[in-house]
Amino acid sequence: MLKKITSAQNREIKRLLQLQDKSRNRKKEGVFIVEGKRETQLALKGGYEAVHFYFCPNLVDFDEVIKLAKASEETSPEIIEISLEVYEKVAYRGSTEGVITVFNSREHELKDIVFKNQNPLILVAEAPEKPGNIGALLRTADAAAVDAVIIANPKTDLYNPNIIRSSVGCVFTNQVAIGNTTEIIEFLKNKNIGIYAAALQSSRVYHEIDFSPASAIVVGTEATGLSDQWLENSTQNIIIPMQGAIDSMNVSVAAGILIFEASRQRSI
Amino acid sequence: MLKKITSAQNREIKRLLQLQDKSRNRKKEGVFIVEGKRETQLALKGGYEAVHFYFCPNLVDFDEVIKLAKASEETSPEIIEISLEVYEKVAYRGSTEGVITVFNSREHELKDIVFKNQNPLILVAEAPEKPGNIGALLRTADAAAVDAVIIANPKTDLYNPNIIRSSVGCVFTNQVAIGNTTEIIEFLKNKNIGIYAAALQSSRVYHEIDFSPASAIVVGTEATGLSDQWLENSTQNIIIPMQGAIDSMNVSVAAGILIFEASRQRSI
Repeated sequence: MLKKITSAQNREIKRLLQLQDKSRNRKKEGVFIVEGKRETQLALKGGYEAVHFYFCPNLVDFDEVIKLAKASEETSPEIIEISLEVYEKVAYRGSTEGVITVFNSREHELKDIVFKNQNPLILVAEAPEKPGNIGALLRTADAAAVDAVIIANPKTDLYNPNIIRSSVGCVFTNQVAIGNTTEIIEFLKNKNIGIYAAALQSSRVYHEIDFSPASAIVVGTEATGLSDQWLENSTQNIIIPMQGAIDSMNVSVAAGILIFEASRQRSI
Repeated sequence: MLKKITSAQNREIKRLLQLQDKSRNRKKEGVFIVEGKRETQLALKGGYEAVHFYFCPNLVDFDEVIKLAKASEETSPEIIEISLEVYEKVAYRGSTEGVITVFNSREHELKDIVFKNQNPLILVAEAPEKPGNIGALLRTADAAAVDAVIIANPKTDLYNPNIIRSSVGCVFTNQVAIGNTTEIIEFLKNKNIGIYAAALQSSRVYHEIDFSPASAIVVGTEATGLSDQWLENSTQNIIIPMQGAIDSMNVSVAAGILIFEASRQRSI
């Protein structure tokens, strides 16, 4: 018979709440939480191992949950029924899909990146401030099917619920690695991947660059741009010419323009 | 002597609060509110007429306010001192620049658009849902220095404080017109401006289009895309090829990719 939880005071439920709120707890336990059917499907498709499915029968059919669980048979995930009251307590920002899944985390080390493509295209983001910006970058990276996304000196862990949500699950569809700027530069240089750092001045216009060889496009924060370390170690600093009254562009828009220019060049 | 307001119950202050909150009040009075020095400067530079400057001496020098007011001499704007307590009550989301300016609105009619460029590049957005999306589109439009931004069937007025804020003042640096889809299509056709509608399928890849003649790039909402009216009346429907797991892109990223491709073509 299925385990059923009807009290928000239940220990497992308290654990779920902490896993959502606290990066520290996610790290300690080596797990994270995904909410929603589509996001859960994408994580499963991305090869993540599910360990618990919490579902609310008022919102989702048991059959659908079984189908999700089957995609993760190897880990024999446990399925737990929760009451609507409990679900509403746990569901992040009032989603109504009725499924909350606990997955095992991954390491996201640079050394684990696998390049299927001989001339990979990589998006690197240094110290992105807001989870929403990381989410938008991951969406853009998915759309352009870049070979990997590397985040330098992140301010938050990748399994922050706001990143998962704002990436609409693209955190699971991209190959993502995390590292500090020094080791990422070394990694790229060792692999002979061209480093194209988006700078704010005295650089070459981005579309004059030939992005068909192995290339990493590197973007910094909206407030301060990239660190000197990137600008000094790049193959070439590049710029999107700003022709307006304001010298500022949303970081995910800038990344989209650069990545899709590379993608355009590679398609023709 | 300078008028000074120290009570949040003051009638003028209550009026300011309503102007911020209610589109209806902005329309009835034909004015809107700008908060912050940079945004006020951009509105002045964009030729908007200031009618009142409210400033808080704890946060900004009187000299700076005088300088701003001089840029709008023709309307002889009134300068009013407000206490910190009152400022904090009025300031939207806790800005600390100490200046709140009341400006006369404009009409933003299609017929008022002036094209300095013989082959203008125009960004059209249909029914953008969120003020934040409109703000991001206006930032991108400013960066590419498009000739005009046209908003079809807007869900909010242009002077919504969230649009002003998220556009970082680019609502004043672009030439913006508003209309319904039918009249905008007629306007573009009359002027022989090519209509390139961003569609979700069975369209030509965007970078195969020659954007050097007069062109309007038209984007719809993330949820439903463009209305059939645009897709049926376009010169050509275009698509950004999506190569990832998810078929979805942030509307301001998509607009950035399309507008900057046109800009790239025009620069070479």
